[in-house]
Amino acid sequence: MQARILELLRDEGPLSRVQLADRMGVSRTTIAAEVTRLGELGLAQEVGRAASNGGRRSKLVDLDPDIRFLGISIGATGLSVGITDGRLAVLAARSVDCDIRQGPEIVLAVALDEARAVMAEAGVDEPLGAGIGVPGPVDFHRGVSVSPPIMPGWDGYPVRDAVARELGCPVVLDNDVNVLAVGEQHAGVARAARDFLYVKIGTGIGCGIVVDGDLYRGVDGCAGDIGHIRISDDGPLCACGNTGCLEAYAGGAALARDARAAARTGRSPVLAELLEAQGELSAADIGVAVARGDAYALQLIRDSGHGVGQVLASLVSFFNPSLIVIGGRVTGLGHALLAEIRSVTYRRSLPLATGNLPIVISELGDQGGVIGAARLISGSVYAPFHDARA
Amino acid sequence: MQARILELLRDEGPLSRVQLADRMGVSRTTIAAEVTRLGELGLAQEVGRAASNGGRRSKLVDLDPDIRFLGISIGATGLSVGITDGRLAVLAARSVDCDIRQGPEIVLAVALDEARAVMAEAGVDEPLGAGIGVPGPVDFHRGVSVSPPIMPGWDGYPVRDAVARELGCPVVLDNDVNVLAVGEQHAGVARAARDFLYVKIGTGIGCGIVVDGDLYRGVDGCAGDIGHIRISDDGPLCACGNTGCLEAYAGGAALARDARAAARTGRSPVLAELLEAQGELSAADIGVAVARGDAYALQLIRDSGHGVGQVLASLVSFFNPSLIVIGGRVTGLGHALLAEIRSVTYRRSLPLATGNLPIVISELGDQGGVIGAARLISGSVYAPFHDARA
Repeated sequence: MQARILELLRDEGPLSRVQLADRMGVSRTTIAAEVTRLGELGLAQEVGRAASNGGRRSKLVDLDPDIRFLGISIGATGLSVGITDGRLAVLAARSVDCDIRQGPEIVLAVALDEARAVMAEAGVDEPLGAGIGVPGPVDFHRGVSVSPPIMPGWDGYPVRDAVARELGCPVVLDNDVNVLAVGEQHAGVARAARDFLYVKIGTGIGCGIVVDGDLYRGVDGCAGDIGHIRISDDGPLCACGNTGCLEAYAGGAALARDARAAARTGRSPVLAELLEAQGELSAADIGVAVARGDAYALQLIRDSGHGVGQVLASLVSFFNPSLIVIGGRVTGLGHALLAEIRSVTYRRSLPLATGNLPIVISELGDQGGVIGAARLISGSVYAPFHDARA
Repeated sequence: MQARILELLRDEGPLSRVQLADRMGVSRTTIAAEVTRLGELGLAQEVGRAASNGGRRSKLVDLDPDIRFLGISIGATGLSVGITDGRLAVLAARSVDCDIRQGPEIVLAVALDEARAVMAEAGVDEPLGAGIGVPGPVDFHRGVSVSPPIMPGWDGYPVRDAVARELGCPVVLDNDVNVLAVGEQHAGVARAARDFLYVKIGTGIGCGIVVDGDLYRGVDGCAGDIGHIRISDDGPLCACGNTGCLEAYAGGAALARDARAAARTGRSPVLAELLEAQGELSAADIGVAVARGDAYALQLIRDSGHGVGQVLASLVSFFNPSLIVIGGRVTGLGHALLAEIRSVTYRRSLPLATGNLPIVISELGDQGGVIGAARLISGSVYAPFHDARA
């Protein structure tokens, strides 16, 4: 009951007692009693009266203005950290480059340094809780990373407990794609969607699944691991040890590999030039080459989009979502990628399932991970009050 | 509240007032009042006292013994009809061959004849409600079939309302795979599973998806339509008009087509013999040929299993289910099919997702559809009492 009040205030803003009573199907007296208790806990309070519509004006309830959450979103090549208020508006945020392969001690030390800096900036001594996303499978209940293909050294590392010890507050750990999906649901294009997919194309490829408004994690917590769906019987070796995985064709690391090959073999003169000038190439350089009119670079992007579209078409037939959001660094490569993903997905799926299916690019950028991580911990912090009344 | 009591009694059998109060987190007084109201409605009643454990024995509550549901499960080539009690035990059932392509008037007339016969057999004048499954996409809320590829003449036909008019009771319509999944959940191998897939390989191929104990239908109601996932860029023409669909490789209709080709070209001497003797071949004849040691027939089954396994591997990576149940006529072809499906699915999925994943054959047969259809209508009949207390 109290958790539901807190979630409504988080997602919709200040509500009158009457509105809360209506939404929850309970009496105003019950709401008043619960709000008093939430006030004692420092979580919610009355903030005046709602606009009148003739009768006596109902008291307006809002979250405590001093609630602060910390969101930490760790990707393969960089991390973002931010402080939000109770409604998950970002008050301060920082992003830095950081290679996940340095292992948990170093990466988490960087994250905690950034966290302390951003807390100082926002004048926060101790957040109510912190959410963390990492780019690989997570045992959600134990709060540890499990056999993450692109995260050497992280397997079994107790990320949640280590960070909780450092920060002195409750922490939740989830994989980065779940965190991004939840951020999109709170503040992005998926606000109105109940059943949607968030597909991240970064160094790797993964998918967050939302069913009826809640994250779906699967029985072992590894639902959405679409990067290792096999799209070909042979093909390049994947970081997971198999061949033919989507990720090994279409992820950021695969694109960087293909860019280097295209430069070395001379198939792409622009990429060859960039390689000579920079000494190395990333997926982003393919976008630069496309902007300079390089036809082979454009083909690399189309091939990537084709692979992603192939897998999405299968998922659309299976899951029949109301929306697909595409995010991750690789979306910075420009419109050709989205065009190819859409074209293949729409062509290969059932007409019934794609009739009203938007496939759109996330507009939240790095903030999506921060907001999503903050939302996960907000749900967890509020949850202890779930059955307070039962 | 009342719906929840009825569902608990349906799924677990007679429960004491104390047990009901515990499960639902309400007082015994509340339970007593609700049971009285359910008695007035003819749905539940007190049936004596529970076994004593020292104190005063709690009153035992059970469903009314006169509750009857009708389940109708229509497949592409046959239909099953049955009468169940409130706990969905089948009291009488009948199955007949019937070609779905004869159109809704003829097929529904056959179904209603069988329904009346089975009602007479079980001494039922009027069931509390009827559930129907049909082998194609359904608009669940409107109760009509929509653009079903293998069901000419059914598009837009008001199946639910037509049957409700004939039977004079509430009716729900769903697709056959959802109905089978729900039947498996109630009385089959999926009883303990919260998140599982039921894959039917019949004339076509489809999948029922259960998320946290409830059917997941997707935003347009066509989730689970995996028969039209493309597993190859070319390949045989599918009934849906596309090429390369799973169903066009691995479904019963595809197997019958391949059996005929193998007979005509002489690649399978046994199938050639069967074709000459019978004048036609079905998928089942491939099983006969395998039993007689025909190597090419065995290869046909393996190819079919390979295609199904390819798609299941993708779905396992995406959905991370706790169980996959395989059902449908084609499973009658024997162990080679299941062996191939398992082999490909396990090999191509993430180890984390397949570590504890059983892939098993349904043991319910035709009764699965009857029980599932009865369960769907039981939920719908109980649902009006869902908010009776709010």
